[in-house]
Amino acid sequence: MPKKAEERMRYEEFTIEGRNAVIEAFRSNKTIDKLFILDKCQDGPIKTILREAKKQDTIIQFVTKERLDQLSKTGHHQGAIAMAAAYEYAEVSEILEAAKEKGEPPFLFILDEIEDPHNLGAIIRTANLVGAHGVIIPKRRAVGLTATVAKTSAGAINYTPVAKVTNIKKTMEELKKEGLWFVCADMGGEVMYELDLKGPIGIVIGNEGQGVSRLVKETCDFTASIPMKGEIDSLNASVAAGVLAYEVFRQRRNG
Amino acid sequence: MPKKAEERMRYEEFTIEGRNAVIEAFRSNKTIDKLFILDKCQDGPIKTILREAKKQDTIIQFVTKERLDQLSKTGHHQGAIAMAAAYEYAEVSEILEAAKEKGEPPFLFILDEIEDPHNLGAIIRTANLVGAHGVIIPKRRAVGLTATVAKTSAGAINYTPVAKVTNIKKTMEELKKEGLWFVCADMGGEVMYELDLKGPIGIVIGNEGQGVSRLVKETCDFTASIPMKGEIDSLNASVAAGVLAYEVFRQRRNG
Repeated sequence: MPKKAEERMRYEEFTIEGRNAVIEAFRSNKTIDKLFILDKCQDGPIKTILREAKKQDTIIQFVTKERLDQLSKTGHHQGAIAMAAAYEYAEVSEILEAAKEKGEPPFLFILDEIEDPHNLGAIIRTANLVGAHGVIIPKRRAVGLTATVAKTSAGAINYTPVAKVTNIKKTMEELKKEGLWFVCADMGGEVMYELDLKGPIGIVIGNEGQGVSRLVKETCDFTASIPMKGEIDSLNASVAAGVLAYEVFRQRRNG
Repeated sequence: MPKKAEERMRYEEFTIEGRNAVIEAFRSNKTIDKLFILDKCQDGPIKTILREAKKQDTIIQFVTKERLDQLSKTGHHQGAIAMAAAYEYAEVSEILEAAKEKGEPPFLFILDEIEDPHNLGAIIRTANLVGAHGVIIPKRRAVGLTATVAKTSAGAINYTPVAKVTNIKKTMEELKKEGLWFVCADMGGEVMYELDLKGPIGIVIGNEGQGVSRLVKETCDFTASIPMKGEIDSLNASVAAGVLAYEVFRQRRNG
């Protein structure tokens, strides 16, 4: 029996075809994964498309007419096809619902302004494998679900719900009323092995450079520190998220 | 008192100045971090440099003569300065030496064909913080220590020795004679929490796509699996390395 999450792919790729449609897609900042252009095509609109594509670091492939015809779903590509991506974000309530359905205490990730799409993708991947019920990201000052994130998540983006909220602090306060408590990964806290990380929990991972922001940190119940022996300051954000998440996993497993 | 590792920076950046020197540097595949070109300079040699730079995805900045003069160490930049990087690899024996000096049983990472520089950098960063004595990478079919690796390692590359060996399997066999034993992170092994990961140990992390190669896996004493609950297959390589390394850390810490 297919799992519920599999029945509904949140992340989908589709084609945008024709010169104007492609230009429009770039200008409206749609997530374009890849661009296919008819080889040797050099007119004005195509040049405009290539310029926009370069601005956004889109992968460009010059292909034959036969290949374009093959990729085309409308039959009217005019020498330009963009592969675009769309993601349907979840509601926070769906994350709690997912935990309830599995009969498990909620376990979620709060990402406070993660900027690197590779980190976001790797963290969603970890969230899926560690058995977390969802990931919450802020609307502003953070990377959203782009094609790079989808790719780095290795498919996890289709299974683990990601909710995008306006105010992380407010969302945490609402979740506290539902019985959750929050632990942020930061220096100067108690060593994670000494904390009780069982029960309904949200782990909070900060920005790559600045760490967890002050307001969010104040809303956390505990600060967990990952012990560090070396000369440098901090782990990569997705590694830190993985190490803390697996400590939660280990403790839940034992009790 | 500064630590020994700090006295000796293994990773260094330097400038390559002048058109021919810069072209030569690109053609001999030196690691070029960034390229500075005199704004509006468009002659033949400069065009050649730009073409080579684009091939290698080097970051290019067009700057004023004043800025170039500032960056220049020789005073003879001819409109082109490349920022290059050099890394002095360690010997495997230095890694064992480092463990001995600290009076700790050796703990090292063996990376079997990691291809993504961000993963390599993040793993060296983890190796530093978890207190590992070094990292071993293969000469072939793997990313070496590029500027991206240096940057992603957040400085760890200067503290944690990285050795590059011709034959991973042979190196492992030699290290076994020194008393080390090896555990690889792979599916189908014993859950890592059930294994005894104390003592002189090397953890083996496989390639992003294929995992640990057959010959290397056969040379390992144990396979440790990171428990996974989700729908997808595997963690990101640097996250897997982090999670396994911290399990080693946790067990060593407890005794």
